Amino acid sequence: MVGELIGVLGGTGDQGRGLGLRFALAGYPVVLGSRDAGRAKDAAGAVRELAPDGDVRGAGNAEVAAGCDLCIVAVPYAGQRATLTEVGEHLRGKLVVNCVNALDLTGGPHRLEVAAGSAAQECAELLPGARVTAAFHTVSAAKLLDPGATLEGDVPVCGDDADARLATVALADALGMRGVAAGPLHHSGTLEALAALIISVNRQYRTSAGIAFTNVDRSRSR
Amino acid sequence: MVGELIGVLGGTGDQGRGLGLRFALAGYPVVLGSRDAGRAKDAAGAVRELAPDGDVRGAGNAEVAAGCDLCIVAVPYAGQRATLTEVGEHLRGKLVVNCVNALDLTGGPHRLEVAAGSAAQECAELLPGARVTAAFHTVSAAKLLDPGATLEGDVPVCGDDADARLATVALADALGMRGVAAGPLHHSGTLEALAALIISVNRQYRTSAGIAFTNVDRSRSR
Repeated sequence: MVGELIGVLGGTGDQGRGLGLRFALAGYPVVLGSRDAGRAKDAAGAVRELAPDGDVRGAGNAEVAAGCDLCIVAVPYAGQRATLTEVGEHLRGKLVVNCVNALDLTGGPHRLEVAAGSAAQECAELLPGARVTAAFHTVSAAKLLDPGATLEGDVPVCGDDADARLATVALADALGMRGVAAGPLHHSGTLEALAALIISVNRQYRTSAGIAFTNVDRSRSR
Repeated sequence: MVGELIGVLGGTGDQGRGLGLRFALAGYPVVLGSRDAGRAKDAAGAVRELAPDGDVRGAGNAEVAAGCDLCIVAVPYAGQRATLTEVGEHLRGKLVVNCVNALDLTGGPHRLEVAAGSAAQECAELLPGARVTAAFHTVSAAKLLDPGATLEGDVPVCGDDADARLATVALADALGMRGVAAGPLHHSGTLEALAALIISVNRQYRTSAGIAFTNVDRSRSR
């Protein structure tokens, strides 16, 4: 809920910076993380220019993990294992929202092989005791970073902990999208694949597409 | 285009019968196929009750493959290899639209391992010379079979042949949905995974959900 400090690991990348911006605009305090605290502070400064009333800071990843109430993981997949191994102890008991896409974008975009099944499943393996969900894979970073662009469509959310899933749905709602609970974490690979599919659609129609479900009424949720 | 005879292999199952019904209502002549011609004729009779003005027949799979102008493959995945091996010679040069979901629905629905990558890729391997696309995985069979239900949302279409992809997009359009070209056939596994994700969403919200892309304007197509 608003008031909780949102930490963003990988907060200097487009997706991390974009989500940080949008959460700041929605009224959350945000701390962007990086291996290099100086780069994180620079990214936070750039975000504050777009959200002058926002509470946005930058810090090293370990400080972010230790201080945040909930954590967005937006690192490049290649850096996920090292980052989470380093800072994981600080994330026990916390909500951790993984939006990492383990994709190879050369040629037709496609998923990388991940032994755990998906980036989010690997994240859950690396963070015992954290409440890991997968979300925001299919939200356009370009749109996130443009404060004038309206975010639209749905954010499918996967996770094995029902409360964590609901909290993540609420985060999507806070950004003006609609969170949709989409089953356990083992579906998270589908969210990554969907991101690759959307890249194909973007190339075909020269756009920044998103995803939505038809015929879903959330008041009918189990 | 209307006038072309649409053959449906696996035309007695819910998805096959539902697509047959909808193409008949859209004005296409349709022939439903089955290993057992008698069962195919029964299914055609049931469809004609819902579409009294439709041109709908039933026949054995080989006759369907030989006679049709384009072919929908809607067999259960377990039967795909045997069926296509048997009738494949009749499909050379034809548009073949695969909507087979290789899913295990026990427990959390998930994809079966397919050596070729996906059911549609296996179909393409089994049908050299056919123009194979993947589509209609995420369209609810329950909605297809209810002539009073409006079909909505998008039908992502994958395929390696651009003309075949466009022809499949037009088939989706003919049913009142919107076909969206979504890249090469290697993305077809994502469409199957998406069907499993939608089953999870359906269970959560007690519905028959579909999929749509936001921010796609087809007039901007490359």
